[in-house]
Amino acid sequence: MAAWARAVRGLLLDISGVLYDSGGEGGGVPIPGSAEAVRRIKASGLKLRFCTNEAQATREKFVKKLQGLGFDISVDEVTAPAPAACRLLKERGLRPHLLVHDDLVPEFADIDKTNPNCVVIGDAAENFSYANLNEAFRVLIGLEKPVLISLGKGRYYKETDGLKLDVGAYMKALEYACDVQAEVVGKPAKAFFESALAEMGVPPEQAIMIGDDIVSDVGGAQQCGMRGVQVRTGKYRPSDENHPQVKPDAYVNNLAEAVDTILSQM
Amino acid sequence: MAAWARAVRGLLLDISGVLYDSGGEGGGVPIPGSAEAVRRIKASGLKLRFCTNEAQATREKFVKKLQGLGFDISVDEVTAPAPAACRLLKERGLRPHLLVHDDLVPEFADIDKTNPNCVVIGDAAENFSYANLNEAFRVLIGLEKPVLISLGKGRYYKETDGLKLDVGAYMKALEYACDVQAEVVGKPAKAFFESALAEMGVPPEQAIMIGDDIVSDVGGAQQCGMRGVQVRTGKYRPSDENHPQVKPDAYVNNLAEAVDTILSQM
Repeated sequence: MAAWARAVRGLLLDISGVLYDSGGEGGGVPIPGSAEAVRRIKASGLKLRFCTNEAQATREKFVKKLQGLGFDISVDEVTAPAPAACRLLKERGLRPHLLVHDDLVPEFADIDKTNPNCVVIGDAAENFSYANLNEAFRVLIGLEKPVLISLGKGRYYKETDGLKLDVGAYMKALEYACDVQAEVVGKPAKAFFESALAEMGVPPEQAIMIGDDIVSDVGGAQQCGMRGVQVRTGKYRPSDENHPQVKPDAYVNNLAEAVDTILSQM
Repeated sequence: MAAWARAVRGLLLDISGVLYDSGGEGGGVPIPGSAEAVRRIKASGLKLRFCTNEAQATREKFVKKLQGLGFDISVDEVTAPAPAACRLLKERGLRPHLLVHDDLVPEFADIDKTNPNCVVIGDAAENFSYANLNEAFRVLIGLEKPVLISLGKGRYYKETDGLKLDVGAYMKALEYACDVQAEVVGKPAKAFFESALAEMGVPPEQAIMIGDDIVSDVGGAQQCGMRGVQVRTGKYRPSDENHPQVKPDAYVNNLAEAVDTILSQM
């Protein structure tokens, strides 16, 4: 992370695995130095936006949890997939059958869900029962043209008690069962990163995405013309450094180290 | 189904969707004419073998259910994936973590399951909870070289109360989450058809496979050098007739019609 970091005007931060590890009592544990790192970014004058695929709660509830863990963050700084999905549903007149976490349902409060003509799948965690997945399958297979919208396509994430299957695994199950290709809302979709950049008012070549997911964070950002930096926290695994498709612009041990390096270049 | 049916010496029959539809009280409902069709095959002198991906019960229990539904069938006439998987596990010194239906577990009674070095997945139905799939995922992702063995790769099947997700969907979920390719035991694996043919003592060019699954039954049999006939019962859907890869050698409305036609050619 050298010369190119000097041109940076804005940072996009992933949340889970970068700011904190989710799970357990209190909803998670901050990653050491990350709350201070967020404060330093804000003090530096760099533009900042949180870009998350979090879909286990409304943005309001999620941000409140992060504030409780000591982070300086507000709802209007967060780009998340459920609001993006709602825009898409309205634009296309789609009425979803929802297979999502109970706490995410309020995000879809003003969306018509009668007589569904698509399925929206998010990180439903315990709601990914056989009965619920089968119900979503039956809705899809019963449609003349099945439409499956997925809030992200992550393979897994890390909680305090270990790795957890993410929405991408269940998306693949439904894709295979119904012979359909999901439309992904959230990282690594280009439109999602672009909306985060637009909200920040920074062009991609002046932005850095910092995340723990080699594909969704780093690869997705690079596809968009941004630099992508991988932290060695969260779901990071050493084997990521041999990823056949994606090579990050830099590795850092954690968010604090990333911020140190970037600020020292300015 | 014309001239080529004259050369036939043996029939392979799928069970679910061909002999009966599973589900509900009593475990299922016979498809009209199918019990009589099985008796007519046996009386004709044709060799007969049942070739199933059924993995919700031991062969013993499964055959007992079918006998109760009026079918002339015995355990040693059935080729099923769990015994094939056990042979494979023993040959390769693999110790499975099982994600299967409770009633299938006895098939693995004499297999060492301590300190697992692979995952075996079958049609676990209600056992496909988030917690159980996550546990299988953690075993796999923790292995240096993840080995995933899947009892079939069906997308869905039909029960009396509707379509149900089959093991293939969950296999795809684990494949994606762990970036691994499953080894399929059962249809449409070539080795599986070949073992059924060997047990019957008939070469592929003199055998017909009759099934309701366009890919696993018909396509798999054809890959093996057999003729593949699709019945319009079970999970058959009209859209199967436009399948981009697989074209059956013939369609029949049901097993009874297939047997009528074949016997009339002899």
